[in-house]
Amino acid sequence: MIIIGLDAMGGDNAPKEIVKGAAQASLKLRELDMLYLFGDEHQIGELLTKYNHDMDKIRIIHTTEVITNNDKPVKAVRRKTDSSLVVGLNYLKDEKIDVFISAGNTGAIMSGSLLILGRIRGIDRPALATMLPPMKGKTPMLLLDSGANSECKPNNLSEFAVMGSVYMNKVMGIKNPAVGLINIGSEETKGNTLTKAAYERLSQSNLNFIGNIESRQIPDSPADVVVCDGFTGNIIIKYTEGLGMAFMHILKEKMTSGFFAKIGASLLMDKLKELKGMFDYSEYGGAPFLGVRGAVLKTHGSANANAIKNTILKSRAYVENNVVKTIHDEILKMAEEAEDSEEALLQDSLNE
Amino acid sequence: MIIIGLDAMGGDNAPKEIVKGAAQASLKLRELDMLYLFGDEHQIGELLTKYNHDMDKIRIIHTTEVITNNDKPVKAVRRKTDSSLVVGLNYLKDEKIDVFISAGNTGAIMSGSLLILGRIRGIDRPALATMLPPMKGKTPMLLLDSGANSECKPNNLSEFAVMGSVYMNKVMGIKNPAVGLINIGSEETKGNTLTKAAYERLSQSNLNFIGNIESRQIPDSPADVVVCDGFTGNIIIKYTEGLGMAFMHILKEKMTSGFFAKIGASLLMDKLKELKGMFDYSEYGGAPFLGVRGAVLKTHGSANANAIKNTILKSRAYVENNVVKTIHDEILKMAEEAEDSEEALLQDSLNE
Repeated sequence: MIIIGLDAMGGDNAPKEIVKGAAQASLKLRELDMLYLFGDEHQIGELLTKYNHDMDKIRIIHTTEVITNNDKPVKAVRRKTDSSLVVGLNYLKDEKIDVFISAGNTGAIMSGSLLILGRIRGIDRPALATMLPPMKGKTPMLLLDSGANSECKPNNLSEFAVMGSVYMNKVMGIKNPAVGLINIGSEETKGNTLTKAAYERLSQSNLNFIGNIESRQIPDSPADVVVCDGFTGNIIIKYTEGLGMAFMHILKEKMTSGFFAKIGASLLMDKLKELKGMFDYSEYGGAPFLGVRGAVLKTHGSANANAIKNTILKSRAYVENNVVKTIHDEILKMAEEAEDSEEALLQDSLNE
Repeated sequence: MIIIGLDAMGGDNAPKEIVKGAAQASLKLRELDMLYLFGDEHQIGELLTKYNHDMDKIRIIHTTEVITNNDKPVKAVRRKTDSSLVVGLNYLKDEKIDVFISAGNTGAIMSGSLLILGRIRGIDRPALATMLPPMKGKTPMLLLDSGANSECKPNNLSEFAVMGSVYMNKVMGIKNPAVGLINIGSEETKGNTLTKAAYERLSQSNLNFIGNIESRQIPDSPADVVVCDGFTGNIIIKYTEGLGMAFMHILKEKMTSGFFAKIGASLLMDKLKELKGMFDYSEYGGAPFLGVRGAVLKTHGSANANAIKNTILKSRAYVENNVVKTIHDEILKMAEEAEDSEEALLQDSLNE
């Protein structure tokens, strides 16, 4: 039995699309699983009457405050103690729910998770991990950090690699995930101070590190996980979205100019619809905030009911596969290995 | 009369595609303009017999060495003194040619330009500027630095903004070009240490600074020039190419699966061909290496004859409009303004 918490008040389309997505998901949850909606019970109740749902699967936790995108993250989390986000994260901390999902203020979700749940021991910087849509027949690829840390140190990137590998292994079932480092050249010596140092660390790790990945290669790279600082990661995910939208726009324009083009386009309509979702990273089940003591998923601010439903239904895998605990164990193991090798070096030098 | 120098030996498809492009361009050069090809005279001569060309417009400068992509830039420039690149840059320095174009080793082109031509006085870091293809009906946008400096300081970004503005004004005829700062949020307070400090500098400048540009907005931002460090810029231009290619690949796949789709696609073929070039930044006349004392244009390593021809024919505008001298004057003016305002501050404090 799993209890999924949902911030009904966070996001550009809240509470309408969030509640609609929750209603749809309630009809598909496994037996015994539950969905807790955090937010204004009046608004949520009224919306629920509009959509088909399974009332036995839904419980509303009434909260009176809302953190908006205009709120300053840390301040909002500290002051708005009866907001849907803060109450939800406290439920997660107290293990009254197993996973918490929000489409709200990204900064507040991260600050709230750090302040309320705390970091996994040994993790210096938690990271937002975004699943890049599968392109050219590839499986999706996890990119982290996609925006939590605009400045990073080399050890942060190694931690991201460990966390990303655990997630892809446990949640996506990929054995020994291939890890790549986002860089501006394929050779080891390329890049800035950060990527050069991170390359060295990753090469020495026990991870399945396959080297630098240039952004040109992202759509068909063999990596399952790619790591970078949060500034670079944010540039990449937002550009994926922007270019995808631009491409669809241009395609539509080309296809509706001229008689033959219009006929051609009408014959192709179904195929073109499939394309649309291809650059939309919100369809892939939300971005886990990895490295905090609890399963937190951030969905796109403009997530619609369908994206919310998908995130709810896919969140089960995050919980069932003990991602948080495995990250904890792997980071501990990494620290022990580092200690052992230091010990060995020390021993060697004493023996000399 | 303008003399255009071309590195016939640099690039993945050299010398064949380079010479072919030069041959095509020779037929379209203005009266009195000339094209100097630097490279092996035997190979070039043999290739020229294959393509229609105007021999009166072409002169071959024989060189015996070639700098490849595997060469270490600085070392190669210092040692291979009879390479097509080094000889070409020396011709530019000695004003025997007016502009130099190469599709070769980017690092070597930059190191060579720095070592042989030197920086424009007042410029701390020259930058590679890449024209992003026009999307969604926009005019093209100049992005710099696209890869010359993987680490930057805030003053570098202001210099990039000045140089980019001069280029877009002089070469593309855009009055008072709008300058944007690539960042991970639209608000002034967003970003990393570099972008926050650069935002402040740009706000205080006399440039037409329009604020932060998120990568999502790149395809339809109102900016004519966008600045960022060379790591971020390189990620962006290579991702433009990679995503564009992936999109075309997927589109083709969708369009050839199923009977109706095939018919539809055949009716649309012409329109789809237009799409292909849309994500190809090599079609827009080469990337100027701004901030050095001479007009140097880098074209894509995999540039074909058509791209070479375009770059040759468009290079005239770079020379005719005195970009190098204008950058020099603008940077000087900026330095004087900064001095004046310091002077005024000092005077104010003395008067108090």
